[in-house]
This record gives sequence, structure tokens and C-alpha cells, in this order.
Amino acid sequence: MAWDPRELKDWQIAELAEAAGAIPTTEKYQEMMGLQKDEIIPYGKTPKVDFLKVIDRLKDKPNGKYIEVTAITPTPLGEGKSTTSLGIMEGLGKRGVNVGGALRQPSGGPTMNVKGTAAGGGNALLIPMTEFSLGLTGDINDIMNAHNLAMVALNARMQHELNYTDEELSKRGLRRLDIDPKNVEMGWVIDFAAQGLRNILIGLGGKKDGYMMQSKFGIAVGSELMAILAVAKDLADLRERFNHIVVAYDKQGKPVTTADLDVAGAMAAWMRNTVNPTLCATVEGQPCFVHAGPFANIAIGQSSIIADRIGLKTFDYHVTESGFAADIGFEKFWNVKARLSGLTPNVSILVATVRALKMHGGGPAVVPGRPLPDEYTKENLGLVEKGCENLVHLINVIKKSGIKPVVCINSFYTDTPAEHALVKRIAEQAGARAAVSEHWLKGGDGALDLADAVIDACKEEVKLQFLYPLEMPLRQRVEKIATEIYGADGVDWAPLAEEKAKKFEADPKFADFSTMMVKTHLSLSHEPTWKGVPKGWRLPIRDVLVYGGAKFLCPMAGAISLMPGTSSDPAYRRIDVDVNTGKVSGLF
Amino acid sequence: MAWDPRELKDWQIAELAEAAGAIPTTEKYQEMMGLQKDEIIPYGKTPKVDFLKVIDRLKDKPNGKYIEVTAITPTPLGEGKSTTSLGIMEGLGKRGVNVGGALRQPSGGPTMNVKGTAAGGGNALLIPMTEFSLGLTGDINDIMNAHNLAMVALNARMQHELNYTDEELSKRGLRRLDIDPKNVEMGWVIDFAAQGLRNILIGLGGKKDGYMMQSKFGIAVGSELMAILAVAKDLADLRERFNHIVVAYDKQGKPVTTADLDVAGAMAAWMRNTVNPTLCATVEGQPCFVHAGPFANIAIGQSSIIADRIGLKTFDYHVTESGFAADIGFEKFWNVKARLSGLTPNVSILVATVRALKMHGGGPAVVPGRPLPDEYTKENLGLVEKGCENLVHLINVIKKSGIKPVVCINSFYTDTPAEHALVKRIAEQAGARAAVSEHWLKGGDGALDLADAVIDACKEEVKLQFLYPLEMPLRQRVEKIATEIYGADGVDWAPLAEEKAKKFEADPKFADFSTMMVKTHLSLSHEPTWKGVPKGWRLPIRDVLVYGGAKFLCPMAGAISLMPGTSSDPAYRRIDVDVNTGKVSGLF
Repeated sequence: MAWDPRELKDWQIAELAEAAGAIPTTEKYQEMMGLQKDEIIPYGKTPKVDFLKVIDRLKDKPNGKYIEVTAITPTPLGEGKSTTSLGIMEGLGKRGVNVGGALRQPSGGPTMNVKGTAAGGGNALLIPMTEFSLGLTGDINDIMNAHNLAMVALNARMQHELNYTDEELSKRGLRRLDIDPKNVEMGWVIDFAAQGLRNILIGLGGKKDGYMMQSKFGIAVGSELMAILAVAKDLADLRERFNHIVVAYDKQGKPVTTADLDVAGAMAAWMRNTVNPTLCATVEGQPCFVHAGPFANIAIGQSSIIADRIGLKTFDYHVTESGFAADIGFEKFWNVKARLSGLTPNVSILVATVRALKMHGGGPAVVPGRPLPDEYTKENLGLVEKGCENLVHLINVIKKSGIKPVVCINSFYTDTPAEHALVKRIAEQAGARAAVSEHWLKGGDGALDLADAVIDACKEEVKLQFLYPLEMPLRQRVEKIATEIYGADGVDWAPLAEEKAKKFEADPKFADFSTMMVKTHLSLSHEPTWKGVPKGWRLPIRDVLVYGGAKFLCPMAGAISLMPGTSSDPAYRRIDVDVNTGKVSGLF
Repeated sequence: MAWDPRELKDWQIAELAEAAGAIPTTEKYQEMMGLQKDEIIPYGKTPKVDFLKVIDRLKDKPNGKYIEVTAITPTPLGEGKSTTSLGIMEGLGKRGVNVGGALRQPSGGPTMNVKGTAAGGGNALLIPMTEFSLGLTGDINDIMNAHNLAMVALNARMQHELNYTDEELSKRGLRRLDIDPKNVEMGWVIDFAAQGLRNILIGLGGKKDGYMMQSKFGIAVGSELMAILAVAKDLADLRERFNHIVVAYDKQGKPVTTADLDVAGAMAAWMRNTVNPTLCATVEGQPCFVHAGPFANIAIGQSSIIADRIGLKTFDYHVTESGFAADIGFEKFWNVKARLSGLTPNVSILVATVRALKMHGGGPAVVPGRPLPDEYTKENLGLVEKGCENLVHLINVIKKSGIKPVVCINSFYTDTPAEHALVKRIAEQAGARAAVSEHWLKGGDGALDLADAVIDACKEEVKLQFLYPLEMPLRQRVEKIATEIYGADGVDWAPLAEEKAKKFEADPKFADFSTMMVKTHLSLSHEPTWKGVPKGWRLPIRDVLVYGGAKFLCPMAGAISLMPGTSSDPAYRRIDVDVNTGKVSGLF
């Protein structure tokens, strides 16, 4: 059964699918995934899975096939990676395969603002959509509480150190940390787009009203704790990383950590249950974990290693999605996530739309909220062909890893058969499998060709080759990523960035830190308006951020905003609840 | 089975009780409470109950006995109301009665700071203690998100009104609300004791960085939304109240509400599941709802009407607790909660400790964190007898309602039999039943006398009489409460307060608003150091706060802090998690 997504809004399809019984019961999940009763923790419609128990029991079981979903450089409207991730689960499901996946939990920021939730769309949709969109089992809230507790500890400590002598501190079992109020790294978090909290002054009032200082709020999904949740192997790993989160620097410039504030254990206590991933389902009933939702710009931008580890033990085919386009999302999946997890992907699906290819071929700018220019709604083979250079470039990026990609031409109803055929031919000439997929319109029935291509691709052996060895120093890594992945001629380091990079390279403490590039996903370059495959440019790195708990070094080739803004016509204006049934309307 | 609370910490007893299987399974709860399968929503160890379904199915079933727990004017260490609430459930359980109750959800502020959690203590303890203490099923997080979404909407709207002309606003479907930045009532919330966020300046930066204004954070449990959750009859009532929350005033002094910001529906959507109460249990297995945890100082300070409504349908005896002492907690339970709910209590348990009675009799000050003076650890019948005037005064307060109280002498191991006998005799002479209870030390076996007294008291018919009729104007109500409940000679209104009171009395919009007194609980008077039954004083009212959604008018006879501070040696320093089992240690 498929609903007509041209007639119905996503939340209406979700409601119909739910009413039709598409969400598995806890018992059904258990049966589908071969879980024992004490390995699945009921949580309303969305049970959690007890990670430690499952992994321990199934440690000797071979992993299933591991399918990553990435995309070409997108238009600002996106290529439909989440939709395709759900579509391929549905397509494989139609082929009778035991399939599941893992997606990221959406943030309240976009959900309440203009972007909407991230549950896919049309007939490739995740349900229960309301729970998914509005907090699910509370993982983001846990992160928010654990994170803000560190800030409470920091500001209270600064107040007490201001008010008390060394002797008085010592009586309370405290030493003077001597935090530099002008060098506080960490801010508070909230999971909405609260631009009014971006830059704030706190601690006004008397001597018991906190320590007066400049501060900031970021969005909760941008928290370092979220990044840690995504890459942590287990609770022990998470707890250990929590000791090393740098909240500030002291007046000698030495880092002050959550462990120095005696708050790391309590933070981990707030997240004891957050390590267990939550189960949702496609509208066709395939189980899909939802776990972690780290920003793709400064973090790994992918669902958690924990969710993938369980998925590979409980599904024969496990689908996972990388945030942003392949130059960033796939690059991090490949050189960071796969390296940290030790898991080898079998195939990457590279999602492309005719719309984005036309943009890369020279079509007019695509602006969210404005009608698409004619080039995008009428056949234009010239623009498509020219734009395929972005696709081919990214096919070659994926091939460098040893994986042979499957190109998914994510069909839109204004595309023409000739346009689809052209993309397919170019993708195949570049050495990829390719399939047109209509999962948005038709669900799993529309994704059968894609499913067959994926099943076929999974028969090939993958010998994963990282882009750089762990021994390679930071600046060389960045050079390699810039030239071989982004297509730059080289890298220009700003003096500050180079100074920091040299320091990190010289200090063995940073030897096992991951390299997390910060760059726009709207171009292969650092300049969002340069489409296609930009030539003759150099990548500027202006700073390198460090996250001590997540163990990330982030070379900055672009600005990052850790707090988006709420627009003048945000989604919350149209969201409401039926007071008799508790059903929520207006999510999209 | 009882554990020795002199040897073990509360979290250790909780862990032992859990390991011994004391927490009912979801199926067991269902069976004990006569619930149908679709009326109980599994949530890990702490299921929620689907309020609407249960109330609808059982609407014609007679209610069980309704037992309220209140206390004499306490020392700063408390009288053990929560402990006694759990103790009486256990005692009635030992007598073979189908009993349950409702308690408030603790805030992360005290739990992470010095006061600890509010799970009772010793063998009268609520489990699972970790879940109870650290977020439970997320109700407080829901409130935090819904509340902060209103603040996001407010500040973003102020920014957009600053940046756009009337025409530009109109294009976005917005009219100019013209909010007065110097007259913003509402602040943000976080559920920790974050004194550094008490007074803040927000919106620094450029024109897209929010609207620059003074602002504040309060603790989440002090949110008006929490007050609404406690008094709402159902989801429809909650949704309607959400329209009327006053966030600010416009430049003409007219209220600007959540409905004006188009955010009330989305706020209710975040709380669609929050109306369903969560089940925990005593260490002896009696079910106990945990639902809402509003501040006792500005709100009703009691668990929700919804939880009591379900408890009365599913238990033969339902126990509920009122925050603060009887002059405030019982007064609000009686004249506000019982009036709003239409539910008639059968008995009130008035908890008293020998320690507090000695304090009222003239004993030295009791200071948290310092050793108790000798008067409190050695027999002193003179101090006890003198202090009983506070007890007798509050017995008489309860009797005014038509309820005959049961005095619970909450035993401490340094009390002597002669001290207990003296209190019992005085209470009985004042017309109350009385029983010594040792639930802290012995669990239900220690609360059998109390249980018997309660069962006996419940046989009497109660004809509930409110202290004042709804038609009585605000100032007369306050006069009556001050003189007849607090024992004041009269009320002194500050000019500002009187002016506001006159306005409220004249405006029919406030006719159905509840009167929520704001006063210290450490004295019958407004002055915390005046113990016993202070004589010859007048109650000063310096302001009247208004909560448009909760429909509260709060005459202020004392200061209220809506954001406590974190001390220099807070509890979080000793809290940690076992990374192999996920078990949390260090809660108390």
C-alpha cells in the first residue's frame, strides 16, 4: 500500500500508516531482530535496545551487510538522503530481506522552525513521526541536562572561587582552579533555534548570583556530548571521554575539564540510558534505529557507532546515513567512523537528483521558499549532462576507499525518462552501479531496482583503504583531503591555524584525535556558490577547534553557527494537538 | 524484609530492594490496578498510565478513600512528609489493603545540589530511585522544552518586529505585538540550580542575533507550565490554559500571551504525553504515581489532580502529599486543589517530629549541615510540651475543613517513649487520632498503628467546608487565611499590592482565579524565625503575582526565589555510574 504524497502531507501519511498497524509492537521487533526479552526495553511505541546485552550475546555472530547512504553536492533543498535510506530499507524489505537501519534523531530547532523534521518523506517515511520529531525517548534532553550540568558546575565554581579564600575552599575539599573568565570554551545548550541566546551576559546581580561573564547558548545537537554519543563504543568509552571535555582554560592557559569540576560522573549518570538506541520503523514496517544526531559541520554527522554495531548483528542488511554530501559526510564515515568502529561498509549509495545535477550544470540558483525556475521542471539534458561532473567526481571519491558505489537517481515526478537514462549511463561509465528509485512516490515497490543493485553490489568483496594513515600529521591529512577529495590545488593556512596545527602535531596527547573537516556542503569547495567541480582554487583554513572529550580536531574551512535562528514564519505556528486523542498535527 | 537505614544509604537500600524484585512489572501493575492492556504504556521500569482511557472507562466506579499527608511547621531538615506518605502506603499494604499514592517528581536542582532527591528515606523509599531522581519519563524535560519554546517565540518575534516594517510583517501573516522590552514577565527555564542564569542580558550581537533585553532563567519545576500540569483536569483543560500564559505586556500595558505568539499549540504538542502519570513503587511494592512537581511557594505544590483522579479509581486507598506545612500545603490542598478537582479527602495525616516540636518549644536553631544541639538528641519533655502548640494549632486548622486529622509521630531513634506518649496525648486531647510510626526504620511493619488509625478515620463521613466561598473577594480571602489559618491579627497591604488587588477584584476575568499564598513554611507567620504559634503580628502583603494560564493570583507575604543556587559542595561531586551495569551511585 502506498499513499499519494502529492495529495497528503507527510504527517498525514504517517498517521494513516500508524492506523494501518505499520509500527511493530515491542514483541514484533524482538521477533524480527532475534532479541531476547530482556534485551528490549519497552518505551511506549518506540522501545530501546539494551546495547551491552545484545553486543555481548552476539559478539561471535558475523555482521550483516553494511550499507552507507551519501549524496552528491546538494541544492539547499537537499537530495533526499534520509528518504532514500528509508526507501532502500523498504525496497530490500519487498525483496524479502531482513533489513533495518539507523538514522539520526532530529533537533527541535529545525523541527519547530522552517526545515521541518527529518523523517524522510512521502512513502519513504519513518514512524511514529510525532514521537520521532518531538523528543523520542529523551536522548537529546539527556544530553541537554548533562551538558548544562557542566555549565552549572563551571559558573558556580567560579562564583565560589571569587567569594572564598584558598583556606575556605580547601575546607570544602576544593582547590582553586583559577579559571580565566575571558577563556571559557563551553556554552550552554537548548534544543531550539534561539538566536537571542547566541551571545549573552550572565551572573548579573550580587555575589551569590553566579559569576558575571560573557556566555552563549548553542543548539543541543551541536553539543560535544552528542558528538561523543555518536562515536563512543560503549558506556565505558563514553564515561572516559566525559573526563576530558574542556570547559575553559585557567589563567596559565591550561585546560580545565569536566573532571576538574568533579561533574563528569554525574553527567554520565544523566546519560546512562542514552547509550541504548531507540527503535522506530518505516511506514512499511522495517525496524530503524534512531540514535544520536550530531551536527555534520563540526562533528561526525552520522548516527551512532553503537546503533550500527547492533544493527549489523540483528539485521542481514543494515543501512546508515552520512550527513552532508559525500565530500564531507562520506569522507568522515570512511576515515573517521569506520576507523573508530572497525566496521567495513559493503556499499555506499550515492543519492543524486536531476534537480541538483541541473544546478551543477549551470542552472539558476535554487532558493528555498521560492518557486523553482523552469529549467528544473522541464527536460534539459544539456544541464544534466554538464552537472554530472559533480556526480562523477564523487563516484571517484568513494572508489578511492575501495567501495564501489551505487548511484540512486532519486526520482521526482517532473523528471523525464531521458534525463534518468542519461544520468544512469554516465554513472555506469564512471564505474558505478545505478538505479532510478521512486520510493517517495511508491515506497518499497518504487525502490526494487535500487534494492537489486545494492544486493548485487554487496556480493563484491570490499578491501577498505583509508585516505590517510593515523600516523599522518594533521596538516598533511588536510592537504590530502583538500586535493584528493575536494579537488583543491592546495591549502592555505592562516597564521593562527598553522600555529595551532603545529602544536597539535607536536603533542602526543592529540595523536589519536580524529580530523573533522568544517566546510560547507553546498560546494566541493569552501565557497557555497561554486557549483559542479570547481577548479583552480585553494582551501583556506583559518582556525582549528579542539574537542577533548570527543577527541576531534576540526580544521575550519568555513564558519560554523552553533545556534541557528528562528525565522519570522516558523513551523510551530501551525503545530497543534488534538485534545481528545493526543495526536499532533502540522509536523512536516 | 527491612534494611538497616542506619548502616545503608538510601540509594543502597533502593538497589537492594530492586534486586529483590520489589518493582512491579508492567503486567503486575496492570493486574494490581485493574488496568486494561492499552491503558498502561510501558516505559522501561516506570510505565505511564493512559489517563483519558482509564478515566473514561471507570467514570462510574466509586472513588477509593483519599488520604492527604501534611505536616506541622518543619525544621529546615523537614518533617518527613514524603517518607510518611510512602510509609502509610506500606503500612496499609501490610494490612492487606489495595493502596497506592501520588508523589511529586523531584527537580534536578536539589537532586544535584545539597538537598538530594525526594524519594522518602530508609525503608519508606520510592523505587526505582535512579529513574525517579534523574528525569523519570521526561515530564520535566517536556515542560522545559514547551516553556522555552514560548521564550524562543517571544524573543524571535521581538527581533522580527524590530527588523521589519508593518508591511513586511503583514506579508508573513504577523501583526505588530509591540512588546515592551521593559515589561517581560516570563523567563527561560532549566532544571538545575543555576544561580549564574538568574539575571542575564540576552540578544547581544547584530540584528539577526535576537532582541537585546534583560532576561532570566528560573528552575523548570517553578514554570507556570508545571503549575498548569498539576491543576489541569485533562489535556483539553491544559491546552486551553496554554492560550492564556502571559509572557509580557505591550507598550500599552496589555498582556501578550502564548496564543498571541502562535505557539500555544506547539507547546501543548510537546506535552501531549506529559499528562499521563508515571508509576513507581515503594520498596514494599505498592504502586505510586509520580506526576508534576510544582513549587509549593508560588504554585499548588502538590502532585497532579490527574494522578489523584486515576489513583482514586484504581486504588481502594489513595495517598497524596501536600508540599510545605499545613498552613500552606493543606490550605491549598483544601481550598484550591479539592475545589478544582471536586474530590473530597477522607483524612489528613499531620506529620510531626519530636525534633520540630522541641524547636517550637524554644529549642536552639536547627541548621542543616551542623550537628544537632543536645536538646534534640536527649529527652526533654518540657520543650516537647511547649512546642505542641504548633501541632494543636494545625490540628484545628485541619478540623475547620471538616476533616479530622490523624497525627503521625514520625519516630526518630533518639526519641524516647515518654516524648512519644506526650505528643500522642496532646494530639488526642485536641481531637485528633494519633500514632507513632517507625516506617523509616522498619517499613510497613513500623507503620501498622498509623495504618490502623487511618483505616479507622476513613470510616467517618467528611463534610468538606471550604474556608471561603468562591464569591469572596481577594482581600477578604487573604484576611481570612491570615487570621484563621496563620493566626495573624490582620493583613497590611502595601500600596502596590492593594492597587493590584482592587483591579483583580473589579475584573470579572479573574473571578475563577485561585488564591495561592506566598509565604515561608518555616513559621506560621511571614518571619521564618518566629516558631511555635506567633502572636500579635500582622501579615504584610507587598505584591500580587498573576499567572494567566494556571489562573493563580499569588499574594506575596514573602520573597520567592525561582532559581536556587548550587553550593560549594554539591551532590553531583559524588554521583557516578557503573559503566558495566549502568547503575548510578551517590544519589541520596
